[in-house]
Amino acid sequence: MVSLKDVAQRAGVSIKTVSNVVNGYQHVTPAMRERVQRAIDELGYRPNLTARHLRKGRTGIIALAVPELGNPYFAELAGAVIDAAARHDYTVLLDHTGGRRDQELLVCQGFRAHVMDGLILSPIELESEDLLARTDTSPLVLLGEREYDAPYDHIAIDNVAAARLAVRHLVDTGRRRIAFLGAREESARRPAHLRLRGWREELDAAGLPAGDDLVVATEAYGREDGARAMAALLDRGPRPDAVFAYNDTMAVGALRTLADRGLRVPEDVAVVGFDDIDESRFAHTPLTTIAPDKEAIARLAVDCLVDRLAGTAATEPRRARPGHRLVVRDSTVGRR
Amino acid sequence: MVSLKDVAQRAGVSIKTVSNVVNGYQHVTPAMRERVQRAIDELGYRPNLTARHLRKGRTGIIALAVPELGNPYFAELAGAVIDAAARHDYTVLLDHTGGRRDQELLVCQGFRAHVMDGLILSPIELESEDLLARTDTSPLVLLGEREYDAPYDHIAIDNVAAARLAVRHLVDTGRRRIAFLGAREESARRPAHLRLRGWREELDAAGLPAGDDLVVATEAYGREDGARAMAALLDRGPRPDAVFAYNDTMAVGALRTLADRGLRVPEDVAVVGFDDIDESRFAHTPLTTIAPDKEAIARLAVDCLVDRLAGTAATEPRRARPGHRLVVRDSTVGRR
Repeated sequence: MVSLKDVAQRAGVSIKTVSNVVNGYQHVTPAMRERVQRAIDELGYRPNLTARHLRKGRTGIIALAVPELGNPYFAELAGAVIDAAARHDYTVLLDHTGGRRDQELLVCQGFRAHVMDGLILSPIELESEDLLARTDTSPLVLLGEREYDAPYDHIAIDNVAAARLAVRHLVDTGRRRIAFLGAREESARRPAHLRLRGWREELDAAGLPAGDDLVVATEAYGREDGARAMAALLDRGPRPDAVFAYNDTMAVGALRTLADRGLRVPEDVAVVGFDDIDESRFAHTPLTTIAPDKEAIARLAVDCLVDRLAGTAATEPRRARPGHRLVVRDSTVGRR
Repeated sequence: MVSLKDVAQRAGVSIKTVSNVVNGYQHVTPAMRERVQRAIDELGYRPNLTARHLRKGRTGIIALAVPELGNPYFAELAGAVIDAAARHDYTVLLDHTGGRRDQELLVCQGFRAHVMDGLILSPIELESEDLLARTDTSPLVLLGEREYDAPYDHIAIDNVAAARLAVRHLVDTGRRRIAFLGAREESARRPAHLRLRGWREELDAAGLPAGDDLVVATEAYGREDGARAMAALLDRGPRPDAVFAYNDTMAVGALRTLADRGLRVPEDVAVVGFDDIDESRFAHTPLTTIAPDKEAIARLAVDCLVDRLAGTAATEPRRARPGHRLVVRDSTVGRR
């Protein structure tokens, strides 16, 4: 059995360097990578990253369950989690729940517990009582906007503050009739929806209208949902001069509808999204958006899980608030 | 231990129906789903999808390794593979290789073999000799454009025919100077690149120019790469009246550059992409594209793997060619 040490000796480098190459770290020069790769090839070394985990009765795998891989935000977040996990020699089992309660319950209850050491879950439908009823004992870290009264680590940006920042930008650039696209049906009535709450708080603070006639509820958050919501809003009554969309994919859909109706962005209607997905830079009109710090979200989630696995975490559940910022593009201020 | 049968009796439905709900199949009515879910909740049933696999010394997990989750094509394909695998009670461990040979080798050599029964791999850099040197004995199914002389099942659409179909559409709509964006550096010299080859064959057949001055090589295939390639092409010389991009994300980048340069699509330059990602319908100008049958690709890949695992596959490696079609939108024919 060829070892990491054998490879290091053959390549004339440190074991740490070989480990870095094998784990795919970025800070290895191409020349060094090639040198190590040559030694690996010559010796027929087959890395066994998980031996260390297996000795501890672990698999070296953490699961990441997101509502939808088709949403670029989650795909980009998944990439960041995979990178963060690799730095701890963990690999990631990726799962999508479709945002459905039954699938979220399945994942959460640990039906794959035999192959994973812990779970990072971004829930949509799960309720606090579901979490309290959880019997699986492997570590669980929650991501995202839903707030829970349950003893689990939770990583989420300050969605209310982020939404207020987006709406403030629209107010500051002279908008007076600012709609919200992508409320959930139930939360249009009870304001559990943090981005909707932020929208309302900031409009109230500015003395601008924030009535239900400016809110469009949708069932999902894709491009098509955004396009339909924008159409419904335009058909409904007095035209808004700005829309704040729940996320970038919805905003992209809204841009499509505005173009199809012959309305100019931002002259007639300004648009702000949320997520800063790569696509938003290349949208019909490059999109102003809220950029959550995805790397920090991923790093904090993995760190929480690793600390729980190592038994070094505090007993109290951890609440971490990664940062966010406003990225201003043409969709609110025009071409510069 | 509550069984599937207990849930079926409590809900007053067949075991098959409970299994369908638990596995998240689509063809269950919401009412039936709710009825079964209620029985699951009441009995505290915890599904153990993998018991069957474990009895056979298997994990019930297949790995899917793609170059990049940030590319929506692979995210959409991954969703289809997860669905196809669920129909065989398999769950999917998703991995991204970054399209780098060292990571592709790691995955291919089975360094996670202890947790997966088989692998579906979409390689970029891997060579035939890498596959021939593979010592891991778990089933491997290859996806994508690269062609290998190695004894493994391979699922890929006919990329040459698909590219010819795209270029034929441009020729048929009157285009005479048709560029290709996204060749790989080396393949611009040796035409191993199937979509580039299709582009060239169709132009040759039409008696239209297909010289290297109409080909832009890129290092990657994202939106930014497409934007830069389009800019390079416009800076290079006589303007083409059409571009065929390696994929949709590159085409979206090209649309961005064309808009920034004040060129109209399709009046000045027509654009065709490849992949039919959801985003392409909502692009700056809705994008004409080649739609590979992603569901068929996923289904065939999973079927191949399942047949190999069951020992029912033929000894000969299987070559499957899922279908593709041309989707015509505004970027070639204008607004209709």
